[in-house]
Amino acid sequence: MNAVDKPELPSIPCGSVVAIVGLGLMGGSLAAAIKASRPDIKVIGVARRPETLAQATQRGFIDEGFLEPEPAAQAADILVLAVPVLSIVNLVGRLAPLLREGAVLTDLGSTKVAVIQAMEKVRWGAQCVGSHPICGKEVSGLDASDPQLYRGATWVLCPTDFTATWAMELVASLAKEVGAEPVVYGAAEHDAILARTSHLPFVVAACLTRTIAKKTAPHDLRLLSAGGYRDTTRLAGSDPQMMQDILVSNRANILEAIEQMQAELEVFKQLLANEAESGAAGLLRGYLEETRSLRRQP
Amino acid sequence: MNAVDKPELPSIPCGSVVAIVGLGLMGGSLAAAIKASRPDIKVIGVARRPETLAQATQRGFIDEGFLEPEPAAQAADILVLAVPVLSIVNLVGRLAPLLREGAVLTDLGSTKVAVIQAMEKVRWGAQCVGSHPICGKEVSGLDASDPQLYRGATWVLCPTDFTATWAMELVASLAKEVGAEPVVYGAAEHDAILARTSHLPFVVAACLTRTIAKKTAPHDLRLLSAGGYRDTTRLAGSDPQMMQDILVSNRANILEAIEQMQAELEVFKQLLANEAESGAAGLLRGYLEETRSLRRQP
Repeated sequence: MNAVDKPELPSIPCGSVVAIVGLGLMGGSLAAAIKASRPDIKVIGVARRPETLAQATQRGFIDEGFLEPEPAAQAADILVLAVPVLSIVNLVGRLAPLLREGAVLTDLGSTKVAVIQAMEKVRWGAQCVGSHPICGKEVSGLDASDPQLYRGATWVLCPTDFTATWAMELVASLAKEVGAEPVVYGAAEHDAILARTSHLPFVVAACLTRTIAKKTAPHDLRLLSAGGYRDTTRLAGSDPQMMQDILVSNRANILEAIEQMQAELEVFKQLLANEAESGAAGLLRGYLEETRSLRRQP
Repeated sequence: MNAVDKPELPSIPCGSVVAIVGLGLMGGSLAAAIKASRPDIKVIGVARRPETLAQATQRGFIDEGFLEPEPAAQAADILVLAVPVLSIVNLVGRLAPLLREGAVLTDLGSTKVAVIQAMEKVRWGAQCVGSHPICGKEVSGLDASDPQLYRGATWVLCPTDFTATWAMELVASLAKEVGAEPVVYGAAEHDAILARTSHLPFVVAACLTRTIAKKTAPHDLRLLSAGGYRDTTRLAGSDPQMMQDILVSNRANILEAIEQMQAELEVFKQLLANEAESGAAGLLRGYLEETRSLRRQP
């Protein structure tokens, strides 16, 4: 699947309509990025609250807003579902039948197997492409939107069994338009890797936050913690609804990753216990050296 | 022990000599911070390598350099041991007998029980004060030194059973001079809290780094990870020698913290497993909401 890095990848046609369902951090930032680089593209936003549409319009992120996704889906050349994963799964079946000929449906969900399965169930699978831009923040909502969010990020494209080449190219063009680098992964491989590189770090940050909070008075935590605590626990501030959908839709991979993390903690515990008791100097030190070099590699 | 927040805390006398043993990130930054705010204070640096002394002199961080700590200890009004914790423990017995009358010995070590025990063993315990400024980075060495490192940081002072009030005040004055806020903790309480707020985050970052690296090709890790991975694993890049000493000198507290973390991961695993299988919606969501609010509190 080399379509996505063709040098002659066409840019999105002038005057196209991009409709984004969900104006949180990811959807809002995408709208902002498109309008910043391609003012000729019409961006339609869909949100549940009129205040969100008003704010997005006022900031110049969208040209038109709807409280329901159907009119946006009917008008779109590119329809982007930027809501939590399980909501994406529901919306695919509801909106795919409304797509115009030549329009594509994609999403920004953090897990892909469930989304691709939903896309393969509809008759319009040729027009569906799963997407996952690898970027984000622990803050959420339109307020946190940033037109630079996608710049330099990897934008994963997952084809369905039926996806047409032109549909892949159109979504790849959207990725490039906002400064991201499109790459292609299969949905199952994507979810297995992300369970470790993204979802496990969230679980670890959450459990670390709780472990510390259980035994540490807030006053002591405030005085006696610094950048290490702040960075290691940062992901625990992620949006609960978004994380719930990710966790449930990638359950088996994440459970496996948690078990591997538990085993690694057990190895560390034994190493530290033995280091101090037997004075077997060297084992822990070698482990720490190796860990640092692993951290530096990617 | 209110000495340290007296409004009339005297500043360090003009022309005092501060000797810093170890010109890594912490010692180098302290030297830089002192010379930046109080050029009249003479700063002596001690390092193992002549190149380090030359670089520190050239950058204006020290006025004089030695390859051995003894001459620095003899000249100091404030002697600061800025080396890994187990080296601090060794140096206390070796250097305390060289202190001039009215001079103080302190350190920048991340654990305090072992240091305070060493300080209480020498006859000069009145002149000894344990210190731990709560700041740092995962990078190490003089190259990474930053005169702003201490600004706004908590600077923990741990008295020995014999520490004189004037000695506490002098070290508190040093903390204030570089922009830090002195607070007093007992050594045992300090070590128990730091095991959770600082040492456990390191252990978790190390184990997370290894768990991910074991199963993920470097190419995939590079493409499919972002800020979440980077922040959560950042501490795994910490200096191995420094961490080894911290881990071994706070072993019991850290082992306990690791066990609490393992238990918390087990809770999470059960919650996720049950959420998906029984559809018992709400339990996981409540857990995620609570975790986010815990992360936001401090």
